[in-house]
Amino acid sequence: MPSVRRLTAILAADVAGYSRLMGADEEGTHERLKRHLRELVDPKIGEHRGRIVKNTGDGFLAEFQSVVDAVKCAVEVQQGMAERNVATPPEKRIEFRVGINLGDVIVEGEDIFGDGVNIAARLEALAEPGGICISRVVRDQVRDKLNYTFEDRGEQSVKNIARPVRVYALSREAVANLPASSAPLAMPVSRSAG
Amino acid sequence: MPSVRRLTAILAADVAGYSRLMGADEEGTHERLKRHLRELVDPKIGEHRGRIVKNTGDGFLAEFQSVVDAVKCAVEVQQGMAERNVATPPEKRIEFRVGINLGDVIVEGEDIFGDGVNIAARLEALAEPGGICISRVVRDQVRDKLNYTFEDRGEQSVKNIARPVRVYALSREAVANLPASSAPLAMPVSRSAG
Repeated sequence: MPSVRRLTAILAADVAGYSRLMGADEEGTHERLKRHLRELVDPKIGEHRGRIVKNTGDGFLAEFQSVVDAVKCAVEVQQGMAERNVATPPEKRIEFRVGINLGDVIVEGEDIFGDGVNIAARLEALAEPGGICISRVVRDQVRDKLNYTFEDRGEQSVKNIARPVRVYALSREAVANLPASSAPLAMPVSRSAG
Repeated sequence: MPSVRRLTAILAADVAGYSRLMGADEEGTHERLKRHLRELVDPKIGEHRGRIVKNTGDGFLAEFQSVVDAVKCAVEVQQGMAERNVATPPEKRIEFRVGINLGDVIVEGEDIFGDGVNIAARLEALAEPGGICISRVVRDQVRDKLNYTFEDRGEQSVKNIARPVRVYALSREAVANLPASSAPLAMPVSRSAG
């Protein structure tokens, strides 16, 4: 019986410096993370027709039917987190690192497995706090459909993956400089818009 | 209201020399094509959890949840057609050209649209009768998961697509030389197997 496979867009996220935050304020950090997930992350994932595959303690793994939706969701989550952090002292800020990959994964019940998932987790680890890293296949699929400019970080060797991964990044600063709601390229854009 | 998008593996197929075949024997060609579709193509697509998006007169467009499944299905259809053609005189043989792409397509009801679909049709036109052409993104997704060796045909400019497409091909001869049922790489392979 061959495995059931599915093309999917995989989003991996974790909290940067989670151990340090927990060491400084265990209950407070746990409560703040839960609140960000409930108030911002979960609704954004739902809005983009994704689903949480699993919570990982210091983050989560999500999948989307569309890689365009996955990237839009990631940008909106990072924008939302930046807004929510404005009034928080820097040492208490929860910031996500996000990695997105596209893969033909193995499906077992509600869970997904395979290189496609592992690479998403590696991309997450390469992202800066508040930023997003994507693989080349994701960038190729979204480049004509979304007006985000990902920076080419070159080929990187990642743990337990045979071939180097070409990494493209959106830094925290690049996310902050995006318009609040980035329209897809196909939508009419007002010329007077900033 | 933004478009609904979906990651999908797109398979486009048409009959090589369809006009010539129809010119020589209209009713016979039509009947033989219908029979190949009913007896071989439709069951193979079902077996690999794909679906026919539309029939195009001289061929069809199908989509699959998994690109690994799409490529396996294409190889098995081409192998099946080769077997079915053995007893047919060359001038009456129906042979498919097949193109496979992966894309984040726009979904409207049962239909799919976008560059991802257009590129699949262009790849189909580049395939030889009995052969299969795939794009680079398809090859990258299947290369470690299936033991088919696609030949690199380089970057090709295709009509109405802004960027050149890197094309990989499996010729009719390469399909014929594959084992009757190619096991995925993850399966144990007997050392004595030819």
